Amino acid sequence: MKKATRQSTKEHNRDLVLKLLFDHDTISRAEIARITGLTRTTVSDVIANQIAEGLVEEVGVGASIGGKNPILLSLVADSRYLIGLNLAHDQFCGAIVNLRGDVKDMVCHPVPGRNREHALASVYEILDALVAKPWKPLVGIGIGTPGLVNTREGMVVSAVNLDWKDLPLAHLLEERYRLPVYVLNDSQAAAIGEYVYGLGGQSSGHLIVINVGHGIGAGILINGRLFQGDGGGAGEIGHVVVQEDGQLCRCGKRGCLETLASARAVVQRYGALVPVTGTPDQTDGSDPVTLDALVDAFRRGDPVATQVVIEAGRSLGSAVASLVGTLNIHKIILTGEMTRFGQPWLEAVSGRMRQAALSKMAEDTRVEVGALDVRGCILGASASMLLDSFSLLYNQP
Amino acid sequence: MKKATRQSTKEHNRDLVLKLLFDHDTISRAEIARITGLTRTTVSDVIANQIAEGLVEEVGVGASIGGKNPILLSLVADSRYLIGLNLAHDQFCGAIVNLRGDVKDMVCHPVPGRNREHALASVYEILDALVAKPWKPLVGIGIGTPGLVNTREGMVVSAVNLDWKDLPLAHLLEERYRLPVYVLNDSQAAAIGEYVYGLGGQSSGHLIVINVGHGIGAGILINGRLFQGDGGGAGEIGHVVVQEDGQLCRCGKRGCLETLASARAVVQRYGALVPVTGTPDQTDGSDPVTLDALVDAFRRGDPVATQVVIEAGRSLGSAVASLVGTLNIHKIILTGEMTRFGQPWLEAVSGRMRQAALSKMAEDTRVEVGALDVRGCILGASASMLLDSFSLLYNQP
Repeated sequence: MKKATRQSTKEHNRDLVLKLLFDHDTISRAEIARITGLTRTTVSDVIANQIAEGLVEEVGVGASIGGKNPILLSLVADSRYLIGLNLAHDQFCGAIVNLRGDVKDMVCHPVPGRNREHALASVYEILDALVAKPWKPLVGIGIGTPGLVNTREGMVVSAVNLDWKDLPLAHLLEERYRLPVYVLNDSQAAAIGEYVYGLGGQSSGHLIVINVGHGIGAGILINGRLFQGDGGGAGEIGHVVVQEDGQLCRCGKRGCLETLASARAVVQRYGALVPVTGTPDQTDGSDPVTLDALVDAFRRGDPVATQVVIEAGRSLGSAVASLVGTLNIHKIILTGEMTRFGQPWLEAVSGRMRQAALSKMAEDTRVEVGALDVRGCILGASASMLLDSFSLLYNQP
Repeated sequence: MKKATRQSTKEHNRDLVLKLLFDHDTISRAEIARITGLTRTTVSDVIANQIAEGLVEEVGVGASIGGKNPILLSLVADSRYLIGLNLAHDQFCGAIVNLRGDVKDMVCHPVPGRNREHALASVYEILDALVAKPWKPLVGIGIGTPGLVNTREGMVVSAVNLDWKDLPLAHLLEERYRLPVYVLNDSQAAAIGEYVYGLGGQSSGHLIVINVGHGIGAGILINGRLFQGDGGGAGEIGHVVVQEDGQLCRCGKRGCLETLASARAVVQRYGALVPVTGTPDQTDGSDPVTLDALVDAFRRGDPVATQVVIEAGRSLGSAVASLVGTLNIHKIILTGEMTRFGQPWLEAVSGRMRQAALSKMAEDTRVEVGALDVRGCILGASASMLLDSFSLLYNQP
């Protein structure tokens, strides 16, 4: 409401039209007028400006629906570029993508250990490399980082992994690169990615994406916009205690969901059950306490690996049931490293969800694996800029 | 977005102005123009219409801020009346309230047992009595009912208590009373009540209200609007399994939150631990296995009663932690019969929440007892009409 009154009508009309062009491969001026309720004259003016800016082009003629054949418009995918970064636990990846989410270039660095300065230096290195590429003009930089983020202030409130606390990341990067910078939680970014470029767009506008990797976090879209809650931490389900007196979690508590259902948890559990010295059948020479080794063992049908992974899936399923009861959002997408365990793991998750949620609500809920994998966070981080420039990103009053 | 384009500008302006009048005791035309961004002429036209309709009146003159003293406007509280109904497990209550939520009249009936027809007859009886009262004109009827509700279609999808399944309640009542009828889940209605008339209005626009009575349910407001999810059941946290192989729940599953934390659960647990024949100190003649008796015992400091209630509070606290992690909404209001156990119970709930949620998120979260008690659902059900007529009720795309 505030936003609508603050923003000028002209900007609002521009955003409305741009959003429609973004949502459609091609669309005519008449169709834009019909959907937005704007007059044909207004639409023509807005489009004329966007053509002049090179954002939009006329791409052909559509089928007539009575009158003369309409000219079809399309967003020029390569008229602008965005940088998206994913600060994952094992490596930082940055990419340049166009307005349609096509990845033009990607740079990845292994994570330089848990050190505030080194982690930041690594972000600079990746961005230095990306801005030196020929893809221009760049619209901005979007970053998906683990931890609690204050997106409005571009502040990483706390990211234990990286030893970041109250780090004004957006400010630092804006100073250095003279581009707008958006900082989001990585799971929230992945949710935007799946919504805009992946499977989520077929949903009602409400979507939950749960990123189940080294850690666990979720991103929640309500009416097609990211919901962050009052403190920016909405979706931080990984550090809710679900087992009293359970395993110690890196957050300092015991029995968090992460200690039961994350990739780190299954690797630890498997490592404890199958000691290194006790795997004579391990002929490929890989370390048995890596996720790769566990995935191999699981695919071979190793009973211990199977038990560990299925139990983790069921723990996640209980947490999913809680999300179903709380939000009753029908579409839930799972992403992250745990999706490597495929259908059996997915069935453990949704099977347990169905047992633990109200039947009527569970039966309408669909849990599936995301389409974008690791690109989700990068694409989401970059798309967050687009959506924000459309005034369509955040669910804020 | 769709709504904005479908609704005419004129209606939209009318709603904007009405909402401001609703939110302020008094306000001037200039202030309305400033906040809404509408022109002074538009505001004056809208206000002129509303004065003609008797909805708004000029109530005095405000302090000058430089020019001439502004005329203050106010909503005429008694220019319209609303009916709100709360179909609680032990009794049905209906009330007539004015535009400011003042209860003018109330009619209550004990619940006529678990029978579809009798329950419906009881609703008719209460409404027949209320519409015969002199408070006119009536704007509509709002109903808060337990169970899963499809608010758009005014359909009670499933209310086990009342043996209602796919009951077109709004349609039946609209036919009978020729008034608009809104049907909501009772906890969702209570959330609207607390937001509009209780403690919630001081919040950011995001609010969780958890109704902890015979059953347990929550209502979630996002940006000041009720969030119902895709299936209308958002907030149905009472039937999420939180204890595997726990007590049998009335929903057919075992170990739902309701079996641990509801008023029914504590009464059952206490009854099992303190048999009727074993209470020689019970001198007031009351039945020890009622909630009243348990409240008495708890207030006396009875150790069994204390243990049962505190454990129930802690179970609820775990569920609250899950809400904190999922939504990161800073304000959580508790209502319902369990609030009769007062501060010690509230401390058990928030103590456990703080243990089980991420510290940073928990410390910013405030859990408190609601201001409205049983009136919350009635006021919320009636207010739902108001908000809907302002196009401001539902978070729908």
